[in-house]
Amino acid sequence: MTDLPDLAFAPLPPPPDADFAQRVRESFALQGAMATLGAQLVTVAPGRVLITLPHAAHISQQHGFVHAGMLAAVLDTACGYAASTLMPADAGVLTVEFKINLLAPARGPLLHCEGRVTKAGRTITVADGLAWQDGADGRPQRVATLSATLMCITGRADVRH
Amino acid sequence: MTDLPDLAFAPLPPPPDADFAQRVRESFALQGAMATLGAQLVTVAPGRVLITLPHAAHISQQHGFVHAGMLAAVLDTACGYAASTLMPADAGVLTVEFKINLLAPARGPLLHCEGRVTKAGRTITVADGLAWQDGADGRPQRVATLSATLMCITGRADVRH
Amino acid sequence: MTDLPDLAFAPLPPPPDADFAQRVRESFALQGAMATLGAQLVTVAPGRVLITLPHAAHISQQHGFVHAGMLAAVLDTACGYAASTLMPADAGVLTVEFKINLLAPARGPLLHCEGRVTKAGRTITVADGLAWQDGADGRPQRVATLSATLMCITGRADVRH
Amino acid sequence: MTDLPDLAFAPLPPPPDADFAQRVRESFALQGAMATLGAQLVTVAPGRVLITLPHAAHISQQHGFVHAGMLAAVLDTACGYAASTLMPADAGVLTVEFKINLLAPARGPLLHCEGRVTKAGRTITVADGLAWQDGADGRPQRVATLSATLMCITGRADVRH
Repeated sequence: MTDLPDLAFAPLPPPPDADFAQRVRESFALQGAMATLGAQLVTVAPGRVLITLPHAAHISQQHGFVHAGMLAAVLDTACGYAASTLMPADAGVLTVEFKINLLAPARGPLLHCEGRVTKAGRTITVADGLAWQDGADGRPQRVATLSATLMCITGRADVRH
Repeated sequence: MTDLPDLAFAPLPPPPDADFAQRVRESFALQGAMATLGAQLVTVAPGRVLITLPHAAHISQQHGFVHAGMLAAVLDTACGYAASTLMPADAGVLTVEFKINLLAPARGPLLHCEGRVTKAGRTITVADGLAWQDGADGRPQRVATLSATLMCITGRADVRH
Repeated sequence: MTDLPDLAFAPLPPPPDADFAQRVRESFALQGAMATLGAQLVTVAPGRVLITLPHAAHISQQHGFVHAGMLAAVLDTACGYAASTLMPADAGVLTVEFKINLLAPARGPLLHCEGRVTKAGRTITVADGLAWQDGADGRPQRVATLSATLMCITGRADVRH
Repeated sequence: MTDLPDLAFAPLPPPPDADFAQRVRESFALQGAMATLGAQLVTVAPGRVLITLPHAAHISQQHGFVHAGMLAAVLDTACGYAASTLMPADAGVLTVEFKINLLAPARGPLLHCEGRVTKAGRTITVADGLAWQDGADGRPQRVATLSATLMCITGRADVRH
């Protein structure tokens, strides 16, 4: 039916320090926004971060679904920390831009928001995010995809991981 | 220095009903997410909506600035309601996608988030958003730009303005 | 190291007609733009299309790499036709928007440009594109990622696949 | 009807050298891709560049309109050179990403493609693009909007304006 190949890209570079997960968890704990939303940091792996967001009325839009912007905030955070795992310990990460496509209403009850590094660069890193929920058919259902450009900032005390 | 012309595009179509501002305000009041953020609906004009967001710790990221995703949520909302003003009274508006560029840290104290319709279509509307704050030089400073694709939904009771 | 799950999403719907590949090939042949670029349609599968683009001076930018916009044109085309395979035979497909991230200079000698449907809807389809080339290490190297929103148009004689 | 303010943002920084227009014109002349499309560089002003693209069969898609990707290539080029005017003479400019929204079929006969710098930074510059054509009502008609992230590259002989 198809001759599209299985691709084996070069693996991502390893995190430059052993404490990458610890510093991501400490930074996440500083985010008032994530606490307000009720987001929880589940997994921190090299180049990959998973955050969950339970559906709740205080983050909903007018139809009762989770607000697309709230979902975007969590996916952006997952992508930013995914990039952060591969950056030097004394660097900071800033979001340059992101784009989100909404694929299905975010009904929950739990939104899984994962960010993965697609290309790790010295200055610019590109990460892709996916949000999914339990679908009516028992399979995971895609809710949103996001692509983000992150910048590595060094030498500034006010911008850290 | 330049021969770039001043362009006079065709004006947007008028809102199809006189109550466009009222229904936007009622819908905004239903959004748990906007109340949680502390966002306030300031202006509703045909094809233009302005929402303000005060800087606060509960919507900040790890550096103390307003979280880019929270700003995106408010700009997306401004764009969605700007589109909504030009749609039939019994229709609903859904965000298909948006992209945001972050231009400066969102320090506040007040973020002005405006959405404007760029192209109003029967099914698809495109709107552009701008967030700004008072800059150190006394002028407004751009904080973020956003472009959004909105879809007009009719005939579904669960999706209204 | 990670507990990120393997996800098994619901499969895409099948193409509504048996001639989906034939009509994509006929439409591709009508595109002056693709002939000008030197792009070749390689694979047409349900929800997936692969086009190749050889590096050449007439599509290069000032540094000698393939122009990002030319690559975008081919990836957009791959995504549009990937969406088209799942649409009714008498429908047309229009690009609403796309976003591209450039990951590496497009050196060639051959750019592989694949589009895949991420979410197939009645009106709106979302597809993701990937361009890659042979890297210096013998592995495929990602050159660009693209996400596109496509609209299915019916009942208009001037807009067909 | 509206209390939306007229905003007076801080002006862009001036070009760092007097020869900014000359180096943009020399670089444009090196682009095989722009010659292939038939694009012409019309205006180079500080932070603003205008390129025109005549409708032609060799850049069309299957419906006879100018291919969205070709339009994107020209808008991306206009944005890149708009950014380039404000960068040091020995720097190079690379496109990190762009997003385009298609607003109307690109019928021509002439597509005006303008790029303007929205935020000029030391490393990252954001520019916005607009394409328009003569509409049926005698006014200019918007065809596409684009937002781009550009990076300033220094110290590399292979990447110049």
